[in-house]
Amino acid sequence: MKLELTPTKVFGDLLRIRAERPLVHHLTNWVTIYDCAQITRSTGGLPVMAHAVEESGDMTKISKALVINIGTLTKEFIKASIEAGKRANEMNIPVILDAVGAGATPFRTLSAQNIIEEVNVSVLKGNGGEIATLAGAVAEVRGVESVNVEGDPKKHAEDLARELETTVAITGEVDIVTDGSRLARIMNGHELMGKVVGTGCMSASVIGTFAAVNDDPFNAAAGGLSAYGIAGEIAAKETTRPMEFKNRLMDTMSDLKEEDLASMKVILSN
Amino acid sequence: MKLELTPTKVFGDLLRIRAERPLVHHLTNWVTIYDCAQITRSTGGLPVMAHAVEESGDMTKISKALVINIGTLTKEFIKASIEAGKRANEMNIPVILDAVGAGATPFRTLSAQNIIEEVNVSVLKGNGGEIATLAGAVAEVRGVESVNVEGDPKKHAEDLARELETTVAITGEVDIVTDGSRLARIMNGHELMGKVVGTGCMSASVIGTFAAVNDDPFNAAAGGLSAYGIAGEIAAKETTRPMEFKNRLMDTMSDLKEEDLASMKVILSN
Amino acid sequence: MKLELTPTKVFGDLLRIRAERPLVHHLTNWVTIYDCAQITRSTGGLPVMAHAVEESGDMTKISKALVINIGTLTKEFIKASIEAGKRANEMNIPVILDAVGAGATPFRTLSAQNIIEEVNVSVLKGNGGEIATLAGAVAEVRGVESVNVEGDPKKHAEDLARELETTVAITGEVDIVTDGSRLARIMNGHELMGKVVGTGCMSASVIGTFAAVNDDPFNAAAGGLSAYGIAGEIAAKETTRPMEFKNRLMDTMSDLKEEDLASMKVILSN
Repeated sequence: MKLELTPTKVFGDLLRIRAERPLVHHLTNWVTIYDCAQITRSTGGLPVMAHAVEESGDMTKISKALVINIGTLTKEFIKASIEAGKRANEMNIPVILDAVGAGATPFRTLSAQNIIEEVNVSVLKGNGGEIATLAGAVAEVRGVESVNVEGDPKKHAEDLARELETTVAITGEVDIVTDGSRLARIMNGHELMGKVVGTGCMSASVIGTFAAVNDDPFNAAAGGLSAYGIAGEIAAKETTRPMEFKNRLMDTMSDLKEEDLASMKVILSN
Repeated sequence: MKLELTPTKVFGDLLRIRAERPLVHHLTNWVTIYDCAQITRSTGGLPVMAHAVEESGDMTKISKALVINIGTLTKEFIKASIEAGKRANEMNIPVILDAVGAGATPFRTLSAQNIIEEVNVSVLKGNGGEIATLAGAVAEVRGVESVNVEGDPKKHAEDLARELETTVAITGEVDIVTDGSRLARIMNGHELMGKVVGTGCMSASVIGTFAAVNDDPFNAAAGGLSAYGIAGEIAAKETTRPMEFKNRLMDTMSDLKEEDLASMKVILSN
Repeated sequence: MKLELTPTKVFGDLLRIRAERPLVHHLTNWVTIYDCAQITRSTGGLPVMAHAVEESGDMTKISKALVINIGTLTKEFIKASIEAGKRANEMNIPVILDAVGAGATPFRTLSAQNIIEEVNVSVLKGNGGEIATLAGAVAEVRGVESVNVEGDPKKHAEDLARELETTVAITGEVDIVTDGSRLARIMNGHELMGKVVGTGCMSASVIGTFAAVNDDPFNAAAGGLSAYGIAGEIAAKETTRPMEFKNRLMDTMSDLKEEDLASMKVILSN
């Protein structure tokens, strides 16, 4: 596949999102559910959250992307997520899985694995420890935070991407996105993003919103993460306070301009 | 009924809310639950959210209004909502139903209809598509957003108000409130309210808080929506950023003054 | 036990929290769940929220403190909370119980009592009405707000502390913390904290985060409440707007300095 991810192309996705206002369905956690909704709205999409098994599939069918985030999972939630994921697969709607806390408890790890087995995921997203866990490596995940990872995160991501034939995104100081053959390292972002709850979950919603208009999940993930990171950089110029920063980050995302994307720092390789 | 909705009367409601601090019980969605609580508090009421079927009725009995919002409904949630609604009806406590997403999936439409059949609702609130759906017309509801409505929204609201003997409120650029005989068109508000998640849900909480002290649901809905819209106009003078705007909107509501209400733009007719 | 709670000691706890980043597990309510997570993060800890009974115990085992808040309780939630609490007791992990709304409905009162019977709670926290209810006195709890309390709140707290062999914290204009022999009256805080939803819930998360590094629950509760109150005082110097205040409160907490703690106003007695 061609390696191309330019500011013009990423801004083109953003313009298309703003024009088409794609519905981005979420089955997500109760901690950051508002943030996921608002960042989707700020990016230009329409968020909806419908976690009842009676409607999770129906809502998916009218959506352009599905984001599953297992941050506060229950058995019913996983069932509804798989139902939504299967409907998404039938209709070729991209599925983003944020494997929050995989590795922290057996229930989380098994639930994430269960979703991956039952649903073809377009982008599997996590921190280093979560992705390492799903790649079969040893990692310490302290709640939802990656503390220690055995081996090379990039290799875990590539192995998992090849095994599952999906795109894997590891978010962190440098984001890594790979589909097993292509690799993107995204250096955009700001350390303040680590001081406020919700920035990780929001990044999955941004990826989902980009995937709603871009049918190459690798480019949607890398482009979305870069745009989101740039919004963080701009917001961090205005404040050093975490919560004020979070609000600015969202507001910057809703007003991101083509010239802002000139600061994209993405290294692509095969 | 008399047609009267003056700044003095609306401010009188607000003063009474601030003095009496009525308990406003919510069964609401997980996305904007905080916003619903805080706008109730900002308006001067005391919010409480108790969705377990074991207590939803008991909590209603000590409340002055009940707000049901089906944004993230489940079967259990609807059951608890109907239980709460029946207790409210027994005790003449006003019930506000925000029919979020009715029309988007069969489960939502049927659940909203189920509540309406089982509970006497004082104010039925929705966007154009949601109200059209419940009036039996055809509408496209993209998640929780009204995209296309067949026919005249005002007529749908009036038909539904007469059929259910209730007050119907359609929120949008111009809010429409009708009890089937009286009609209010409320021109207050600001377009920034459409750029941030939660402003629609909050408006139902404001209506509920006004209904807690004003036993005419038509006036409570029209007055509450006007006051809330004015708070939006004032907040929009201070910022163009969506999230900053939302915080200002809440804070303006908590500090709304009698002179602010002079900018009420409500057209009443029979 | 010695009576000592100096700014240096409280700041020492804060430094240890920031260095060790303890995992603070929450089973909490859906209204303020984000606020609980963020204030834990702002204090320096790592929050996690895992309410499924399948993992609430496992997540507790890797945590340094467990905060249970019954604000939007269900039967399943109480079951998962007791499971988590039992695992915490086995591993000597401190348990903080915020008895939100005890006294407002029988279900809440009974559920709080059920947790207290099944789990050894390190700090039992509530407002005057909630604690009075659990002490067997008569109180009016309007939703989650204490409106009227029969008798002396301090005496209710002391009785309950002795009966349960725990630390009891009543938050209000003056916070009261007692383990039945020691008593702390904390005068820090600001009236704006009462104008915004979530400040009460957040205080339990702060206590939990302090308890994660300080094995004397009395000192953890009194020190945490004082530090949190000071953050409120500092934030209130910058704004009179409730929502802006809340964001500042969180951001001040994340940047609290040793000299800030000089304004501790804690009266200790036996």
